[in-house]
Amino acid sequence: MTDPQPDWNALTARADDLLRQLFPICRSITGGGLRATLDLLRKTSDFSLTEVPSGAVCYDWIVPDEWNVRNAYVADSTGRRVIDFKVNNVHLVNYSIPFEGTLTFDELAPHLYTLPNLPNAIPYRTTYYNRVWGFCLTHAQFQKLDKKEKYHVVVDTTLAPGSLTYGEARLPGKSGQEYLISTYVCHPSLANDNLSGVVLWTLLLAEMRKRASTGSALHHAYRFVIAPETIGALAYIARNEAAVKGLSGGFVATTVAGPGRFGYKSTWRGNSVIDRAVRLTFRELNLEYVEYPFDVNGSDERQYSTPGLRVPVGTICKDKYYEYPYYHTSLDNLDFISAENLVEMLKLYLLAIEKLEQNKIYRSLNPIGEPMLGKRGLYPQTGGAIKQKAASAAIHAERGYAVEAGNILYGNELDAIRWVLFYADGQMPLIEVAEKTGLPMKQLHEVAEKLVTGGLLEEVG
Amino acid sequence: MTDPQPDWNALTARADDLLRQLFPICRSITGGGLRATLDLLRKTSDFSLTEVPSGAVCYDWIVPDEWNVRNAYVADSTGRRVIDFKVNNVHLVNYSIPFEGTLTFDELAPHLYTLPNLPNAIPYRTTYYNRVWGFCLTHAQFQKLDKKEKYHVVVDTTLAPGSLTYGEARLPGKSGQEYLISTYVCHPSLANDNLSGVVLWTLLLAEMRKRASTGSALHHAYRFVIAPETIGALAYIARNEAAVKGLSGGFVATTVAGPGRFGYKSTWRGNSVIDRAVRLTFRELNLEYVEYPFDVNGSDERQYSTPGLRVPVGTICKDKYYEYPYYHTSLDNLDFISAENLVEMLKLYLLAIEKLEQNKIYRSLNPIGEPMLGKRGLYPQTGGAIKQKAASAAIHAERGYAVEAGNILYGNELDAIRWVLFYADGQMPLIEVAEKTGLPMKQLHEVAEKLVTGGLLEEVG
Amino acid sequence: MTDPQPDWNALTARADDLLRQLFPICRSITGGGLRATLDLLRKTSDFSLTEVPSGAVCYDWIVPDEWNVRNAYVADSTGRRVIDFKVNNVHLVNYSIPFEGTLTFDELAPHLYTLPNLPNAIPYRTTYYNRVWGFCLTHAQFQKLDKKEKYHVVVDTTLAPGSLTYGEARLPGKSGQEYLISTYVCHPSLANDNLSGVVLWTLLLAEMRKRASTGSALHHAYRFVIAPETIGALAYIARNEAAVKGLSGGFVATTVAGPGRFGYKSTWRGNSVIDRAVRLTFRELNLEYVEYPFDVNGSDERQYSTPGLRVPVGTICKDKYYEYPYYHTSLDNLDFISAENLVEMLKLYLLAIEKLEQNKIYRSLNPIGEPMLGKRGLYPQTGGAIKQKAASAAIHAERGYAVEAGNILYGNELDAIRWVLFYADGQMPLIEVAEKTGLPMKQLHEVAEKLVTGGLLEEVG
Repeated sequence: MTDPQPDWNALTARADDLLRQLFPICRSITGGGLRATLDLLRKTSDFSLTEVPSGAVCYDWIVPDEWNVRNAYVADSTGRRVIDFKVNNVHLVNYSIPFEGTLTFDELAPHLYTLPNLPNAIPYRTTYYNRVWGFCLTHAQFQKLDKKEKYHVVVDTTLAPGSLTYGEARLPGKSGQEYLISTYVCHPSLANDNLSGVVLWTLLLAEMRKRASTGSALHHAYRFVIAPETIGALAYIARNEAAVKGLSGGFVATTVAGPGRFGYKSTWRGNSVIDRAVRLTFRELNLEYVEYPFDVNGSDERQYSTPGLRVPVGTICKDKYYEYPYYHTSLDNLDFISAENLVEMLKLYLLAIEKLEQNKIYRSLNPIGEPMLGKRGLYPQTGGAIKQKAASAAIHAERGYAVEAGNILYGNELDAIRWVLFYADGQMPLIEVAEKTGLPMKQLHEVAEKLVTGGLLEEVG
Repeated sequence: MTDPQPDWNALTARADDLLRQLFPICRSITGGGLRATLDLLRKTSDFSLTEVPSGAVCYDWIVPDEWNVRNAYVADSTGRRVIDFKVNNVHLVNYSIPFEGTLTFDELAPHLYTLPNLPNAIPYRTTYYNRVWGFCLTHAQFQKLDKKEKYHVVVDTTLAPGSLTYGEARLPGKSGQEYLISTYVCHPSLANDNLSGVVLWTLLLAEMRKRASTGSALHHAYRFVIAPETIGALAYIARNEAAVKGLSGGFVATTVAGPGRFGYKSTWRGNSVIDRAVRLTFRELNLEYVEYPFDVNGSDERQYSTPGLRVPVGTICKDKYYEYPYYHTSLDNLDFISAENLVEMLKLYLLAIEKLEQNKIYRSLNPIGEPMLGKRGLYPQTGGAIKQKAASAAIHAERGYAVEAGNILYGNELDAIRWVLFYADGQMPLIEVAEKTGLPMKQLHEVAEKLVTGGLLEEVG
Repeated sequence: MTDPQPDWNALTARADDLLRQLFPICRSITGGGLRATLDLLRKTSDFSLTEVPSGAVCYDWIVPDEWNVRNAYVADSTGRRVIDFKVNNVHLVNYSIPFEGTLTFDELAPHLYTLPNLPNAIPYRTTYYNRVWGFCLTHAQFQKLDKKEKYHVVVDTTLAPGSLTYGEARLPGKSGQEYLISTYVCHPSLANDNLSGVVLWTLLLAEMRKRASTGSALHHAYRFVIAPETIGALAYIARNEAAVKGLSGGFVATTVAGPGRFGYKSTWRGNSVIDRAVRLTFRELNLEYVEYPFDVNGSDERQYSTPGLRVPVGTICKDKYYEYPYYHTSLDNLDFISAENLVEMLKLYLLAIEKLEQNKIYRSLNPIGEPMLGKRGLYPQTGGAIKQKAASAAIHAERGYAVEAGNILYGNELDAIRWVLFYADGQMPLIEVAEKTGLPMKQLHEVAEKLVTGGLLEEVG
């Protein structure tokens, strides 16, 4: 994978545009909102769609009937709509069954969800597999409801056989290894979780595709999957089981644009190449972040990590789900996140993936004794000054002639050359060389490729 | 093993009664006192006896002649007994040969043992394999002896071919694994070391037997051994070598009723299932304790851990031998220990053994993707609230309706279910799941058994 | 290897004498100075010499033409020699090609090397493979040069086909394992780097040879190599490849007589038996030192550690190369080092090698149950006092009779016996027993040999 410097400003504008277009859509794990979202994303970078019919068995699960909403509200006896899906689609408990009727407050109340701890937020609630209906509202709204009033409830939804939609794209690579880049798409108007992940995933696909086509081909293959959370991932796995079992690792991109801390939820293995690539990325950027150990709570890494698959899947995030106060509420909106944050996270994902791309294994073609670097112009012409404290770079710059050469002209690069040669045992991946030496992975990779060209190394994995 | 709550008060009374009955008996590595002790213990919980004849070869050792005492004293010229076995059986060096004679102070002195550092304590000394006689006395007593006096010494003991006695019982189990529960019995009137261990061993045997018969059968088999220290253990091993080699681990119960700190002497391996079960027990009780690394000094774990056997054997103790000032002196008496402490330690042994009993290996019968917990009533009906900080339990309790459900109703148990399923790879023992997750082993085991019943797991080890 | 106490004073005198005789010689990677040095060393302890002809291919390298110097200087127009090889052989860039001519200051300057940061030091520079000439001088000297002056330059050297010389000796051993003791010899009048290493290497060879002949034979074989750095090591390896591949580890002795800190540069493996022997040596002496992790910069361990050889080679040093300010300058002279320091380091090397010699593997001949130590006089006759805090050594000494025996008479040695027996599983090397128990390796070895004699152990490796 080559490393063209993308136009970050253009990417930020594109991210902002996508966030604004997509935010209002009412998505769920099936239905028209999901399809509209995927169609809009495909304009940025194409991927193929699959429809999985209702009733399809995915291991222990069954794809439910497709859900669509026309309208939903609660009106008081004057006809005033006190809770209205059209004002905010989070008001309706996602996957509510159709209902129309007039209820007392006491009859209505068990169908209402609020968050007294966060009284101005509408909670986000779902009822995919429990056939009931309900409304979510702010606790402030709830407290203003007249307990003597009679309320007219309309839940004008449809729940009928249809299908669940997911998208996928595959970028081929040379190494025989394949990595997963996954995100989930099913939340209605909520921004950090999970619209930000959806947009990042799309831009990442576009960017990787560009790199694959403009530079040398990708080293590894990448499997991009966008599907409703849990049931969508399971539907995808059920149709691609062998391929998923063969994955070397991957990411679930989610909650990537909040104002809070950088975070990383590690893979179930904890020290897989994914974890190491992410840690190295943060280390090389000298960027503070929180590492969250793998947890059985979370997103689709739960499915990919089950005993029969055990794919190491991690998540780099900014304001990780569960951790920020507005999580799963209407306050997780476009004011909470920013396209700038999202693009900063896109860079992190790209840098982590670059580590995977550069993570090759080399074997020395001159395994006994050091190769003579001098005759290849890779060593100081004058000996004796390497690592000598009394010699210094300042002096060299000040005067015009050969006071001192060794560790100034070559210094760090000479170290990189020597370490790469030293560890070129045909077994140690380059990421381990970076971890052990503290030298930047990119430099090690450049040096290694130069040594391949020079006939001193061969790539063996 | 089921977990009936024992009647701890009754057990404490029983312990107290046994301690008082057994304390006065003069025990040694052979002889009548040893047999009397074992006979009395068998009334609480039966076990079989074996007599190993004097002269029997046990690897590098030979069972010595049987030793019995009728009387032993030192009298001054007025006939006053200045040291008297009948006052305290610790006065006589254990295994002293018969002797009668009149000696000057200077002739007597080399046969006397005192502890100047602890002037009111009679030291406990033995001479099993060196055929001499001697007396132990307090240093205060010693200093009062008239150096001009002539002393009449009577050591009315017998040393003659007989036998060494040990006891054993075996509780069968289903797993094919077998654990050792051992204690040594050979000390005369000394309480913490080792009468407390003898009594705990007996009550543990009784309790385990009760659990085996009233609940489901035991998961593992348990081999209970009570024998004189070193030579008794060697005699037992020599007669049961194959079985001992097959043991998965075990305990030597000793010094379990002192007023001091909880302690654990780890097995020679340091991280065997015995060590892990004990550490988990202390962790779950949030109980402070001292861990003593394995040492070649100690008790019968020395024999079971030798290169040809290598059974990991640990000791949970309260006031570990070597560590308390009264160790191997007459001040280690019934005032020093308590039946309450002993029963507290019995609980610890039972809890550690419960960890072994619960330490099963499960395999998921639904290994790809998470099983759908909702349809089994194991998941919140309303989605979106799991791990949401804005939702809280207090609110739920205060109001009567469905404000919030997920992590309150199921919370911790849901985590337990998910972790058990996640690690059900057919290889990871449940104790490792407990260690990794911090969840109580008992809860994990209950959840796992429920999932076996529900068809989601099978037990494979 | 037996451990006769050497005459350290005589060794110090011998070291001092060798340092003074050898310091003035102008050495390089080939030539007469190198041969003169080796000849002088062979008078202390003989070793064989090999001449490798110019043009010989050593893997990626070629032995260069042989270099010899008759004279070299820079004179001003009055004939005054402003830089003169005969004053200090460091003035001439080592391996300068022949040249004679008259130059302006500006023409001369690019051939001059100084250290402005250390203005009174002549830097040491080389140009083995780049055919140029140059002079090194103090920066103070340089600043006094008249920029208007014309300088007459004479570099009266020869560069012609000849050979490179190295030395070697092999001390045979019984174990089948072989270790390397290497040093490099190629620096002109520089003391700590590397004349000190050359002298230590020679005295070590003499001392080991003496021990091998006066005591029992050596346990391991030792391969002593003295060669010019890099090209000499490569020439040696090329001629002894199979033997080098079979080495179990080794040392490169260098910078062993400075006034500064003890140091250890670990082997590439970091936890090889070499590293462990050195750490144990420092631990047992309770000596502070700096551990430098393996680095691809350094000395001939770079060659021995390359992927095709991977011999773990470490360096114990005092004032490690790179670290002291006078490194590779004329100030690294006989005033900087001392023969006392050198002999102190000789002791450390001998002690570390003793650890290798004592690092045997034993198997218990009585593997089940402890052997009865009492009947072998290895255990207290009176039992009960081992590890008893109330018993004490002071009392025993004060009174004349048997107050207390166990842990006083035998104490530490009894522990050593028991640990050696405990770990005698036929697999654990004795160095690991020392690491685990904290007991001195020498004591463990003595105890083990005693137990072999007593029929309780056999040596298996």
